[in-house]
Amino acid sequence: MANVPLILGFDPGLKHTGYGALQAMPRRPEVCGVGVLSTLEGQDLGHRLHQLHNEVQNLLREFRPDLVVLEDLFAHSRFPRTAIILGHVRGVICLAAAASGVKVMALAPSVVKRAVAGSGRASKRQVQAALRTLLGLRALSNSHAADALALAYAGMARADIGRPGSVRP
Amino acid sequence: MANVPLILGFDPGLKHTGYGALQAMPRRPEVCGVGVLSTLEGQDLGHRLHQLHNEVQNLLREFRPDLVVLEDLFAHSRFPRTAIILGHVRGVICLAAAASGVKVMALAPSVVKRAVAGSGRASKRQVQAALRTLLGLRALSNSHAADALALAYAGMARADIGRPGSVRP
Repeated sequence: MANVPLILGFDPGLKHTGYGALQAMPRRPEVCGVGVLSTLEGQDLGHRLHQLHNEVQNLLREFRPDLVVLEDLFAHSRFPRTAIILGHVRGVICLAAAASGVKVMALAPSVVKRAVAGSGRASKRQVQAALRTLLGLRALSNSHAADALALAYAGMARADIGRPGSVRP
Repeated sequence: MANVPLILGFDPGLKHTGYGALQAMPRRPEVCGVGVLSTLEGQDLGHRLHQLHNEVQNLLREFRPDLVVLEDLFAHSRFPRTAIILGHVRGVICLAAAASGVKVMALAPSVVKRAVAGSGRASKRQVQAALRTLLGLRALSNSHAADALALAYAGMARADIGRPGSVRP
């Protein structure tokens, strides 16, 4: 299905980065891949970033996405220390996407919630329940992976990809 | 001078990343390179990170440093938004160093000031004046480059590199 747009969402984290790949099939989006990239806490920061970068590159090669979707910069703004570490991971993902020539879309959490659950104030639980229904999934085993799929779904809606008559070449 | 340790300091920033390369010569450290990597504000974040990553890789290839020195994570903790953007750049530098097998040392600003100017509370001006004397420089044209050189100098002192009898293989 080379002409069907594929969207890859990432929920970045140094310990666990969730990813979810959605393809804009005519009836409903199809999950092509979903998972979590993990790194070990005791290891050197550079080593962990290098490992993540390699795995993100592998996903980009595997799925050849038309779009990568991340959470907004501003969404990670509670604690500066957490923000800067998240920034490292987010930077590595942006870099890998840019090096592969893939556009990155950044969405605010409220936009993602609205796209998936119909309200920008939906709870995590409501978002996950709506996502399962939208994608026809029985379960979403991991919250990082679920967040990444929700981002991919919202990115697909936002880019107006995957609706009848709007599929891009 | 293949056996003389070379230290590469970076002062990361999305607009301007300063760098300074110091070689631990017996009499006094020698500046092998100093400059600023700049990216354009209007451009896409991924594109700017990709450009920076390429230029950092070029510097690593050119200087083949034994050590890369950055400011501590905690030093960038005033504004979460600034912190997360700095985190992107810092992450890209850590990644490039790790991919080249180069160790990264992170130093607190007070440690850098103490190593260069003798006091952890020295002003920016005092640090730059001390650095000019220590390195035998007439002027330090750019503050990002000066900060990067100060980091390299402090990293050299910290790693106990470049003192008589302490030069590592």
